Amino acid sequence: MTTETLEAARGGDMVDSDFLKQLSAVIRAEDSYGQWDGKSDADIMAEFIVTKDERREIPIIGDPDPDVMWRVEKFYDAVGLMIEKRTGCMASQMQKMSHEGFGRIVLIAGKLVVVSKHLRDIHRFGFETWAKLAEGGESLVESAAQTIDAHPDAARG
Amino acid sequence: MTTETLEAARGGDMVDSDFLKQLSAVIRAEDSYGQWDGKSDADIMAEFIVTKDERREIPIIGDPDPDVMWRVEKFYDAVGLMIEKRTGCMASQMQKMSHEGFGRIVLIAGKLVVVSKHLRDIHRFGFETWAKLAEGGESLVESAAQTIDAHPDAARG
Repeated sequence: MTTETLEAARGGDMVDSDFLKQLSAVIRAEDSYGQWDGKSDADIMAEFIVTKDERREIPIIGDPDPDVMWRVEKFYDAVGLMIEKRTGCMASQMQKMSHEGFGRIVLIAGKLVVVSKHLRDIHRFGFETWAKLAEGGESLVESAAQTIDAHPDAARG
Repeated sequence: MTTETLEAARGGDMVDSDFLKQLSAVIRAEDSYGQWDGKSDADIMAEFIVTKDERREIPIIGDPDPDVMWRVEKFYDAVGLMIEKRTGCMASQMQKMSHEGFGRIVLIAGKLVVVSKHLRDIHRFGFETWAKLAEGGESLVESAAQTIDAHPDAARG
């Protein structure tokens, strides 16, 4: 490990992103007792960051941790809410997970599948930097909006 | 209990139905060792029949039995295969089940949700008669085919 690595902030610089604000709001919505009120967005989203070194150390054997499944769900909940804000179409999440960390997640608006993602190594779900986390969510929202534009009747059906 | 009830065959008369043939084939596909070769279709599908009296006696408290979840899955697998035969669109199943027997099942072809069913009292999943089981499957296939006709691009997208 070099001194450089130790000095760089984990996840790099925080970025200004509508998606990160949405994700933070989704997480804070579960904080019924306000215990996280004093925490920054970076604090409460810290586990969405998985650096290269951390990634290497996470075993992919056995069932994924319930915590990681929770993070996957919150990430796609945030994507769904951004899709609704942008297009007016409510998108609800369905998951199909195997016990080995493989699975599929879809977001459905009306009769239309607006996000469909096959996942593997769910155990290691996370993003290297805040910029990549923001970009990961926003690109799914963008692609969903395009899918809805292409099939408006199905999305509103 | 009246003598009449005892004399009537459980599930009424077996009907000639493409859906029942498909469902039987789906179930037999799991019989790797041919242990059910000597059994009739009515034997291997017997648990899809739930009479009114039986229904009343099934408690709806706690998690649904894995056996009933298996039957729900096979029923929708058979629906999916019939949709593929009829329309050429492969339909894959996703489920979202709560622990109390409520849930949603969808069949997805391409980007299109061709079957979407909200279920409750999963514990009691079943049909009173063979005729109703056949009709239950066939009406889902029919409706899926209409949905695909209405949104062909999404279904093939």
